[in-house]
Amino acid sequence: MSQDKVKIVLQEEDIPRFWYNVQADMPNPAGPPLNPATRQPAGPEDLSAIFPMDLIMQEVSTDRWIEIPQEVWEIYRLWRPTPVYRARRLEKALDTPARIYYKYEGVSPAGSHKPNTAIAQAYYNKKAGIKRLTTETGAGQWGSALALACNFFGLECRVYMVRVSYQQKPYRRSFMEVYGAEVIPSPSNATESGRRILAENPDSLGSLGIAISEAIEEAASRGDTNYSLGSVLNHVVLHQTVIGLEAKKQLESMDAYPDVVIGCCGGGSNFSGLAFPFIPDKLAGRQVELIAVEPTACPTLTRGTFTYDFGDTAQLTPLLNMYTLGHDFMPPGIHAGGLRYHGDSPLLSRLVHDGYITARACNQTEVFAAAVLFARQEGILPAPESAHAIKVAVDEALACKESGAARAILFGLSGHGHFDLAAYDNYLAGQLADVPYSEEELARSLAALP
Amino acid sequence: MSQDKVKIVLQEEDIPRFWYNVQADMPNPAGPPLNPATRQPAGPEDLSAIFPMDLIMQEVSTDRWIEIPQEVWEIYRLWRPTPVYRARRLEKALDTPARIYYKYEGVSPAGSHKPNTAIAQAYYNKKAGIKRLTTETGAGQWGSALALACNFFGLECRVYMVRVSYQQKPYRRSFMEVYGAEVIPSPSNATESGRRILAENPDSLGSLGIAISEAIEEAASRGDTNYSLGSVLNHVVLHQTVIGLEAKKQLESMDAYPDVVIGCCGGGSNFSGLAFPFIPDKLAGRQVELIAVEPTACPTLTRGTFTYDFGDTAQLTPLLNMYTLGHDFMPPGIHAGGLRYHGDSPLLSRLVHDGYITARACNQTEVFAAAVLFARQEGILPAPESAHAIKVAVDEALACKESGAARAILFGLSGHGHFDLAAYDNYLAGQLADVPYSEEELARSLAALP
Repeated sequence: MSQDKVKIVLQEEDIPRFWYNVQADMPNPAGPPLNPATRQPAGPEDLSAIFPMDLIMQEVSTDRWIEIPQEVWEIYRLWRPTPVYRARRLEKALDTPARIYYKYEGVSPAGSHKPNTAIAQAYYNKKAGIKRLTTETGAGQWGSALALACNFFGLECRVYMVRVSYQQKPYRRSFMEVYGAEVIPSPSNATESGRRILAENPDSLGSLGIAISEAIEEAASRGDTNYSLGSVLNHVVLHQTVIGLEAKKQLESMDAYPDVVIGCCGGGSNFSGLAFPFIPDKLAGRQVELIAVEPTACPTLTRGTFTYDFGDTAQLTPLLNMYTLGHDFMPPGIHAGGLRYHGDSPLLSRLVHDGYITARACNQTEVFAAAVLFARQEGILPAPESAHAIKVAVDEALACKESGAARAILFGLSGHGHFDLAAYDNYLAGQLADVPYSEEELARSLAALP
Repeated sequence: MSQDKVKIVLQEEDIPRFWYNVQADMPNPAGPPLNPATRQPAGPEDLSAIFPMDLIMQEVSTDRWIEIPQEVWEIYRLWRPTPVYRARRLEKALDTPARIYYKYEGVSPAGSHKPNTAIAQAYYNKKAGIKRLTTETGAGQWGSALALACNFFGLECRVYMVRVSYQQKPYRRSFMEVYGAEVIPSPSNATESGRRILAENPDSLGSLGIAISEAIEEAASRGDTNYSLGSVLNHVVLHQTVIGLEAKKQLESMDAYPDVVIGCCGGGSNFSGLAFPFIPDKLAGRQVELIAVEPTACPTLTRGTFTYDFGDTAQLTPLLNMYTLGHDFMPPGIHAGGLRYHGDSPLLSRLVHDGYITARACNQTEVFAAAVLFARQEGILPAPESAHAIKVAVDEALACKESGAARAILFGLSGHGHFDLAAYDNYLAGQLADVPYSEEELARSLAALP
């Protein structure tokens, strides 16, 4: 009976009690963040103006297992464990001998994997006596996750939302406001960074870089306020490992183990959350391929340089050791807004550099074709970001059809596309194009690396 | 451990294998539909132009249990069993001794309970050799459910979408199109009914009544095409009983039984799907209160008349024995578009008339206040329709606080509100008002009953 299932559902007691910290097992540690002024490894004091000490300690910890606080676990169980599906209808449509599994994080109240870390970050900040959190959001996925989390822990939440998104996606704003967050368009008059931009250009549409600068500036200048980041950093990646830990258990319950694990990759927390729990097995000699998928429009892992760079345009963050396209690289506009980041998690970057993880880039039209195929077979409307993983899973399944190999493919479906229907509309109307990045722009931004 | 859970999750094998047919147990049967011309009970031949025989037989069956076809069951398991939650955070916020449970149907791919019947209807039509289904949609919930269902069974699907919704809610349209449905604004030039309206008023914004007429006309005039209705009829209500059957099992697993069962009510299929499986217990003497909640703007059960009336404005349907506000009653615009129907399921109407089910009406501002309270406590953003049930559940829980009674409250959360954020935006901006129906309009429409 159980072998025949399409939905592998665990119970609350199966939610992990510990996060998995890949830093305990990495053959080569990731380079430490550097103080941008001194270029020396940043210490806790470099971060304590904007992060609570518990998160700073997680950032540098080499403990393999870090206990999930009971208060966080109790919120997790509102939607966790998330289901793993066997994509039987998709397999049939592709006529492939492969078994395709996907871990679906879109069942969270915010609709993506983002609350896994937002809840943890809000908890540790609350515990440290912090009253408010600031953050930035582009498309709104991260903003709504943090709004939800702050709401649960009684923290105020201010979200600097890129002005063009604020204007074009009013419903994303409303979603955050339902959870009680204050959402202000960035650039704003609330910060020095914002005022400087507005003085130059009162009609500025904003950018994620500007919004990050505003959120950090406010957090650094107020004792009761901290800043919260939705990807890239080690503690964020750590919190996301509940995804992979659950998925492993779910596949085990089906007597399955993946030959390949696939996830979309923007800042890296979604991919890493799914894939890192398989790293110890891989280091122990188990055959498991780990593939991070990014858009060709913003090909950080496939075309970037492995070096030290700033995490933000305004050069406010420490220097991070990672693959980067340059901190002021301007990718073309694509609908997978969550994958338009110039850099990547230092942990993930190191593992890619060392050959444990591979990367692929996809064009947005082929990604949307895979998304529609998936929606019609499996029912779920995927987020454009998540559809990058679908595209590569389909490619892998078709390769199995060629080779006859009955491989087990696990991919991460990081969120639903209920707020992305404008993009689907565009695609179905035949108006969606592939938008390559500019080689000139890339050469310029790489030349400007610190 | 299990008593402490917030999420009561069943496995695939717990999905019901049979629908429950309340017609087997009703003390007084519902009046049969009447042929509008002869006023005699309508026979299968009155319906066979637009419905397949299996559904017509379900419409009149008095078998207590009707087997769910394997093909339907296999689609159900893409999202069923749906979870029951214990709303522990909401209970705490209300400081109530009551235990609040809710059955969440928003996990379906279309985001509501509607696919439970859409899948079944598509299956039976496919089995009968039908190639296309037509239907109407206002807000889009039903249209997307039928689009999904037709997609799974390889049927073409044409959705007549009320023109004003087509224009104002393009994303709902895109959602249906992702599943391969053809969506056309109604009134259209595709039907005689549509052309007649357009000749009178080329700028007509349309109405659900007009859209129904167009969908039925097309289905009746084409041998390869049938019509599909999303609520009201006996077979629709039958298919929705998977909701209540699962919920009973889930509560049993917690050693719980509801003192009160609450659901929102438009055409009645959501409420009935949750509540009808409790009817046999109630008839056997068990104390369980069943409360249908409707908007004060369209108070079918609380202010309507129990009589025979048409199901649609254009008087194309058989006469149905039900509570009605009059088939051309025009309710004011409210955001819970799914609850703006003038009539109600004949089965539900009969049980209300006979005193087994009670009804309450709520104003939309108090409904949205309950929705926001719920979202902040439980995380899930509810559909405005579903929030009517939340409002009454909160009232009941507060009554328990007064009385000290630790009652068990079960309500149906029929869908998520991801496509309703414009309404929330309105509410949060303080721009949402209660919009009472017009007593004059009601007197007029009741006077025009057939």
